[in-house]
Amino acid sequence: MNSPHLKNGSRQPSPPPKGKLRLYSNRFCPYSQRVVLVLDAKKIAYDVINIDLHSKPDWFYEKSLLGKVPALELENGEVLWESLIISEYLEEKYKAHHLHNQDPLQKAKDRLLIEQFNRVVHAVKRFLTGGLGRFTFDDDDVIENGLNTFERELLNRGTQFFGGNKPGMLDLMIWPWCERVEILKYFGNTNLLKKENYKRLMEWCRKMSEEPSVKKSLMDPDTHIKYLQSYRAGRPDYDTILDS
Amino acid sequence: MNSPHLKNGSRQPSPPPKGKLRLYSNRFCPYSQRVVLVLDAKKIAYDVINIDLHSKPDWFYEKSLLGKVPALELENGEVLWESLIISEYLEEKYKAHHLHNQDPLQKAKDRLLIEQFNRVVHAVKRFLTGGLGRFTFDDDDVIENGLNTFERELLNRGTQFFGGNKPGMLDLMIWPWCERVEILKYFGNTNLLKKENYKRLMEWCRKMSEEPSVKKSLMDPDTHIKYLQSYRAGRPDYDTILDS
Repeated sequence: MNSPHLKNGSRQPSPPPKGKLRLYSNRFCPYSQRVVLVLDAKKIAYDVINIDLHSKPDWFYEKSLLGKVPALELENGEVLWESLIISEYLEEKYKAHHLHNQDPLQKAKDRLLIEQFNRVVHAVKRFLTGGLGRFTFDDDDVIENGLNTFERELLNRGTQFFGGNKPGMLDLMIWPWCERVEILKYFGNTNLLKKENYKRLMEWCRKMSEEPSVKKSLMDPDTHIKYLQSYRAGRPDYDTILDS
Repeated sequence: MNSPHLKNGSRQPSPPPKGKLRLYSNRFCPYSQRVVLVLDAKKIAYDVINIDLHSKPDWFYEKSLLGKVPALELENGEVLWESLIISEYLEEKYKAHHLHNQDPLQKAKDRLLIEQFNRVVHAVKRFLTGGLGRFTFDDDDVIENGLNTFERELLNRGTQFFGGNKPGMLDLMIWPWCERVEILKYFGNTNLLKKENYKRLMEWCRKMSEEPSVKKSLMDPDTHIKYLQSYRAGRPDYDTILDS
């Protein structure tokens, strides 16, 4: 998982060993991490080819038409992309360790929550990258309403995880951004997330970070911050984790 | 389906008859039409409450938190929104007349095509609403590549519909915008869609418009254009179909 990120000019790796899926990924891409989490939770065999998103190899566009990660290469050579579509595919194809609730209504409601979380992520992203001009009070509302919804949801469900006594699809789809929540500190903004208002979410974060299948891809806040500093300096150092 | 659109100040309708789902909709909203198409294809009993999106009734926000259509009210009073999430819910809950391919890989590929079609729709929308400044050559590529993909896909599948010998989920999810394709003429742009390059897609359009379950919600180009004129004049006349 922590192999060097392949750059433009690098040689195309040989095909994956028989019986293994291949994930084209990037160690710091939260969408790629979604798929890693699903693969690990479902104990599916896979190998990882990390791609330098700043300098993509030419051959990568033959695998992933839009040059996007995550991209999952199947045993028959076909390639899927889009983190949610790949995750749903894995859930339907590999029946063991199911992640979705089996009730269609609960499944639909979990999917709506994933959508709502996406809106929170985009609002936070506007905050982190757009500066004052683009971050609006609407975004503030989206973030606060979103976090309140998730806090209330954990209270109503009365379970450790959104998925029950183990992480389910909703837990895994939102986790990559929650793993990165500590980097908000780096931006000196303590108002965006008032931890005392989200006790259950904070406890959920702690429990998620202790789950064996989640731990496999976990990175500590310092590594995330170090990467983000390099990204903001215009020279994203995707291999920073190799040094640590 | 063609009931008047309820405005701010209008009385809240009584609950749906027992055994019926209720769809909050808008006659000219393509996302709402997606759900109508799924309900009709699967022969599910439902009634429709049309909402004036320019002047929404207060009580509507109690049904659909974000005030969005489509919103589907279930028999237990719970409400789902987001056209794709509602459509997947209906597909999973009502097993008869299944719309998705049962092979997880084909299903994932169909979902990727729905995503690709969404990108085409957004590019066309930028063209229709944004004027020269916002429509870019990239959008041109997105539209052309997208249409080529769908034309090639019909050729490769060798079937009348993407779903085989009857419309499937992919057919229904992209149809609302295809029904509206003639309105591009109204904008005097004949370059955006060179029909002679898309013979199979045009034949598919014709076959779709003749399907009994699709016909139920079909509106003719004149009605779409009349609505669009009213929309562009700042006074969207959602009830224009009642007059015709």
